[in-house]
Amino acid sequence: MAVSSSKTEAVGHDAAAFLERARVFVDAELDRFLPAESDVPQTLHKAMRYSLFAGGKRLRPALALAASEAVGGTFADAAPVACTVEMIHTYSLIHDDLPAMDDDDLRRGRPTCHKVFGDAMAILAGDALLTLAFEALTTCAKKERVAEIVRDVARASGTHGMVGGQVLDIEGEGQPATLASVRAIHEWKTAALIAGSCTAGALAGGATQTEYENIANFGKKIGLAFQILDDILDETSSPEQLGKTPGKDAQAGKATYPRVMGLEKAKVEAQKLVDEALAELHTLGARAQTLERLARFVVERRN
Amino acid sequence: MAVSSSKTEAVGHDAAAFLERARVFVDAELDRFLPAESDVPQTLHKAMRYSLFAGGKRLRPALALAASEAVGGTFADAAPVACTVEMIHTYSLIHDDLPAMDDDDLRRGRPTCHKVFGDAMAILAGDALLTLAFEALTTCAKKERVAEIVRDVARASGTHGMVGGQVLDIEGEGQPATLASVRAIHEWKTAALIAGSCTAGALAGGATQTEYENIANFGKKIGLAFQILDDILDETSSPEQLGKTPGKDAQAGKATYPRVMGLEKAKVEAQKLVDEALAELHTLGARAQTLERLARFVVERRN
Repeated sequence: MAVSSSKTEAVGHDAAAFLERARVFVDAELDRFLPAESDVPQTLHKAMRYSLFAGGKRLRPALALAASEAVGGTFADAAPVACTVEMIHTYSLIHDDLPAMDDDDLRRGRPTCHKVFGDAMAILAGDALLTLAFEALTTCAKKERVAEIVRDVARASGTHGMVGGQVLDIEGEGQPATLASVRAIHEWKTAALIAGSCTAGALAGGATQTEYENIANFGKKIGLAFQILDDILDETSSPEQLGKTPGKDAQAGKATYPRVMGLEKAKVEAQKLVDEALAELHTLGARAQTLERLARFVVERRN
Repeated sequence: MAVSSSKTEAVGHDAAAFLERARVFVDAELDRFLPAESDVPQTLHKAMRYSLFAGGKRLRPALALAASEAVGGTFADAAPVACTVEMIHTYSLIHDDLPAMDDDDLRRGRPTCHKVFGDAMAILAGDALLTLAFEALTTCAKKERVAEIVRDVARASGTHGMVGGQVLDIEGEGQPATLASVRAIHEWKTAALIAGSCTAGALAGGATQTEYENIANFGKKIGLAFQILDDILDETSSPEQLGKTPGKDAQAGKATYPRVMGLEKAKVEAQKLVDEALAELHTLGARAQTLERLARFVVERRN
């Protein structure tokens, strides 16, 4: 599980190019962290790899790597964090798609994990990815910061983060939605792990307390903007664009921004959050250029 | 999430008394780590607490505390580890009991988590306990050892540990069982986390490399002995003694020691493993007395 070395990367390119470079880097690192498909128990490792290498955008890893660069760190410094947040994101998708939860057959354009490997294996593949995610963090080069990084990632993913948000989301189905209730769900279910990707990446890159706080505020705001765009795309996209079944949120009576404030106002709100997020980066200077580009990508993307 | 202070504990008492003292200590610590039931999302926190405070033996936490003492550490040093291993054990029970897995209605003498809270909430309560378990480790007083402790616990719980063993167990149902296949399942499914409880407790207590290795060997052997006893009790106990439905392993065609070598030989094998485990403790001296007593308890227990 060694991590390849990498110099601080130049930022003279757009978000799409950076996302592609981050994706290639992170996929290679993930491949090294994950046991081989030939390794016993083979079905478990196949299920984990099936869902992990299903062609996601790798936005969370890209944010972790960019946050490391924004505080003077390298790709290599944040490689374990980048892998960890993608493993956690993937485990949450596997469990969310289960029949007992959202009961989804399609994810990232392919049959969901439980459709291919069965419900039991999907539950266990999710559990194993979550466990391996924390093991990966112990390979961070800055050993003295591992405890802070583990704490950040766990809080982002736990009962006052991603899992708590999923519970609020389920409990809110078919209930009257207010802006406050939708915002609370989105902040925990989605924004927390996106913010955690930024802060854990920054810690791994050697952030000072001030840099950490700026990046934490940045992360919360773009995390919320990201989910608002997801809500919007769920109403306006085709299955081909989205890689999953659109319109399911509305159908399930889920709380969304377009539902509580209308499509146009939701777009304005997302843009406003990104502008606020960008303001948090001013003190970081030119090193934060990639984070800026990723923030703009969050509201400009089409899937 | 502060940890109460505690002096190194005297060991002049039997295993049952130590287990009771460890249980009281760990339950108080767990109560502080877990969000309150009144805390949003309330149902999630209720489900987590329902399964965590269901009256388990707390053997894994007791081993973590005793391993800390065996290397000169205190209860307080190992308190986070003790809570962590119990949260991981509990999450694994919640997920194992799901209809998609073993489909069990009764656990520790009460309806299982999903029978009370539903399948979705049980999946999420398990996920949240696993996540909180790793957060708890970041509160270990010896910060410089947190990375090693997280790695130990993650490996014990992952694809070459507890989760991997659960997969082998499911895949082995109805298949011809050999001693080698049963042993492999037991070593991963049960012994790994018991061994991890010992080694992580020892790390938290400040173990040297030699002490760590002795305690790792000790833990693997009593972990396997523990599961052999479980197999034996599953064949010889009433539901009242066991707190869960007995005979289910045989019914499901699961691989067990009594099935491959007969009841009497399985008892002899468990005792032999405990004797070998005790030999590992010689170099640790009198401080390891509690670990010795817990090892003997493993083969003498009735439930």
